[in-house]
Amino acid sequence: MVDVSEKEDSDRTAIAEAIVRMQAHTREQIEQQAMKKGDVLAVSELAGIMAAKKTSDLIPLCHQLPLTKVSVDCDWTPSDTLEDGASNTACLRIRSTVKTTYRTGVEMEALTACSVAALTVYDMCKAIDKAMTIESIRLVFKSGGKSGTFGSLD
Amino acid sequence: MVDVSEKEDSDRTAIAEAIVRMQAHTREQIEQQAMKKGDVLAVSELAGIMAAKKTSDLIPLCHQLPLTKVSVDCDWTPSDTLEDGASNTACLRIRSTVKTTYRTGVEMEALTACSVAALTVYDMCKAIDKAMTIESIRLVFKSGGKSGTFGSLD
Amino acid sequence: MVDVSEKEDSDRTAIAEAIVRMQAHTREQIEQQAMKKGDVLAVSELAGIMAAKKTSDLIPLCHQLPLTKVSVDCDWTPSDTLEDGASNTACLRIRSTVKTTYRTGVEMEALTACSVAALTVYDMCKAIDKAMTIESIRLVFKSGGKSGTFGSLD
Amino acid sequence: MVDVSEKEDSDRTAIAEAIVRMQAHTREQIEQQAMKKGDVLAVSELAGIMAAKKTSDLIPLCHQLPLTKVSVDCDWTPSDTLEDGASNTACLRIRSTVKTTYRTGVEMEALTACSVAALTVYDMCKAIDKAMTIESIRLVFKSGGKSGTFGSLD
Amino acid sequence: MVDVSEKEDSDRTAIAEAIVRMQAHTREQIEQQAMKKGDVLAVSELAGIMAAKKTSDLIPLCHQLPLTKVSVDCDWTPSDTLEDGASNTACLRIRSTVKTTYRTGVEMEALTACSVAALTVYDMCKAIDKAMTIESIRLVFKSGGKSGTFGSLD
Amino acid sequence: MVDVSEKEDSDRTAIAEAIVRMQAHTREQIEQQAMKKGDVLAVSELAGIMAAKKTSDLIPLCHQLPLTKVSVDCDWTPSDTLEDGASNTACLRIRSTVKTTYRTGVEMEALTACSVAALTVYDMCKAIDKAMTIESIRLVFKSGGKSGTFGSLD
Repeated sequence: MVDVSEKEDSDRTAIAEAIVRMQAHTREQIEQQAMKKGDVLAVSELAGIMAAKKTSDLIPLCHQLPLTKVSVDCDWTPSDTLEDGASNTACLRIRSTVKTTYRTGVEMEALTACSVAALTVYDMCKAIDKAMTIESIRLVFKSGGKSGTFGSLD
Repeated sequence: MVDVSEKEDSDRTAIAEAIVRMQAHTREQIEQQAMKKGDVLAVSELAGIMAAKKTSDLIPLCHQLPLTKVSVDCDWTPSDTLEDGASNTACLRIRSTVKTTYRTGVEMEALTACSVAALTVYDMCKAIDKAMTIESIRLVFKSGGKSGTFGSLD
Repeated sequence: MVDVSEKEDSDRTAIAEAIVRMQAHTREQIEQQAMKKGDVLAVSELAGIMAAKKTSDLIPLCHQLPLTKVSVDCDWTPSDTLEDGASNTACLRIRSTVKTTYRTGVEMEALTACSVAALTVYDMCKAIDKAMTIESIRLVFKSGGKSGTFGSLD
Repeated sequence: MVDVSEKEDSDRTAIAEAIVRMQAHTREQIEQQAMKKGDVLAVSELAGIMAAKKTSDLIPLCHQLPLTKVSVDCDWTPSDTLEDGASNTACLRIRSTVKTTYRTGVEMEALTACSVAALTVYDMCKAIDKAMTIESIRLVFKSGGKSGTFGSLD
Repeated sequence: MVDVSEKEDSDRTAIAEAIVRMQAHTREQIEQQAMKKGDVLAVSELAGIMAAKKTSDLIPLCHQLPLTKVSVDCDWTPSDTLEDGASNTACLRIRSTVKTTYRTGVEMEALTACSVAALTVYDMCKAIDKAMTIESIRLVFKSGGKSGTFGSLD
Repeated sequence: MVDVSEKEDSDRTAIAEAIVRMQAHTREQIEQQAMKKGDVLAVSELAGIMAAKKTSDLIPLCHQLPLTKVSVDCDWTPSDTLEDGASNTACLRIRSTVKTTYRTGVEMEALTACSVAALTVYDMCKAIDKAMTIESIRLVFKSGGKSGTFGSLD
């Protein structure tokens, strides 16, 4: 684990995003709260928040750090933003924001939150849609630390 | 957590896959073992195996189950399989295989193994390539249980 | 940890209950989904389910065992069942049901689920009601195993 | 998880209490170290301390924080303090004290320590007394932070 | 993680042992219950039991398995068994016994229990004796499984 | 858990060491990467690093603290440093270095890292050498804190 003992504390934010593509019918079932396992988006957001706190336990070389904020939010991407013109599919966008004041950044915490939220969506819907795909887990924005800002907030 | 007390044990296998897209230069650094944090593929494969064992701790409604096999393997996807003709990018394919003999399946364990292995790749390379994207985490194959076989082994 | 290697597997169920007493105003805020931290009952039920899976990690001499069902449900106790005639207080009843087929029982898993669900209610409401009290965490029912049935299902 | 990035560190203390009511005979067995599973009070106090460190893993929206002190102590409540005149029962009082210097308080850590210590008492005695009840888990005192002091130290 | 899906369940036992060498004065303090952190042997035995349950979380390629028994016991080795004639040192022997009925053995669980118990002894005494050494963690006995019996029970 | 709320932060380092003695043939298999479970030294070093982060979860009275560096390195001890003239055995030396800036030291983290790395070596080689012994887990050096420096860096 990289030596950060000489680094200074700095305010840090990271935002990450995951997209889960599913059948249009699966989206309907989620929106109608009809999935047998419960409220898919609420459970997935909570799973993402809890996972952020376990990042250093999952990613071998991540430092443990005190998170001052974790949020995970889901919304539906309008169909017309899909590049491939696929019909009959819906895309759920999961966005996490994580903050700390510490010597290292929180990119991995934001990415882990998104990933586990997306996996939870899969788990809760897989009885009706095993072909769901998690697409495009990526870092959207980070600020703070010596390497400065990456990406943008929009 | 769904009641599986009436279900029978059955031999179950699941295979999942994740793709990590990165700059061609990042791939070179990985292959030359030049990343400062260590051997990227070896550490990521191990992180994926360990994560499979934590699935029920991460995914709220997953049952705990005794895994009889977990493997995670990485290889490089030939560039010509990319749909969008992007040059200067390389794709790492991470594939996990998980087995159990139990009342519920191991799809989530296989997907979690892939996801955490992919996140670990990101963590170990992010110093030089923050724009890496995890693409297409998906279930490739499952067998066993009442819902039978999904996907194919090829 | 007691030696259970000679015990036989048996179908086992345990039901436990916790009561959280709070101000009537706090109940109103929960029911109106007005608590800043989110949906109190939904988050608490999920926290209880997840905690059941960690019982053997929390209770030093508990065996690890594969749970086949965990459910946690909240409802409001009618005021007139309170013995002490207290007005202005409301009581939330949290009830968990846990099942396994194993050599030891799941009483501790059911009690842990209730306890952590109750603690989560406290956490989510403490900003407005620090005097909430968790009352009467107790085993309501168990069946299976050599010691047989305890309590009743009503 | 609530954003505490703008909050200041402050010295914080929380004290919580749980009462476990049991048969008088069960108390005798505990005091005579006759329980088959071992020294009930010593194991329960230790379980409570260890649980305090897991609070953020159990309570979904709790921040991780560095505890500077955790203690858990058990004593027997004199029978004459019981309101309901019950005879043949004994009450064990479990009291935890937790400290930190951080942006958020340690109420949940103190309550979790008490709760898990009480559950451990139940686990170690349930072979002879399944009707034990955990009564009255509550916050006794807290100091520090913007909301100031709650309760009293006596 | 090695594929054990074709292996049969078998009754398995493993016994491991650790020796902690310390100053004779440290032994006296332990025996007189004078260590500030508490009852060294009781806490260490409990820590060992709890650690056995975390083996698959600590050792990357260990399978998760349901332990049917874990015990950890400490005793003092008579001085005359020391080979090097050292005076003024005392040796604590920690012995763990672990059982399961499963497809793989419990050697690692027994060794982990001993190791963590020994580390806990160190932690509780280090204020007065930083030069304590854990010597000779080793497997004493195992039975069950295809590879059969190793070592002896005496 | 000892009250450290009045202690000051200080830069702290601890170095610990474990020795694993094995058959000369086992060393050869490790060096030739011939062990069926994979690259023994790489996996063990990683397991040690990850274990350091779990120290407060394993050792009951250890404080949680933010580690700023953890490294684990293996090398082979030249045979002629063995005191007992044993032939046909080889000794692997595992050395861990841990740093923090906090109120308490990191001796236990360094010792835990070494111990778990050594256990992992055992796990990965036990198929061919069950008689391997972990010898001499000890603190080599510590600095920082009120008790000052112990041992030396050479």
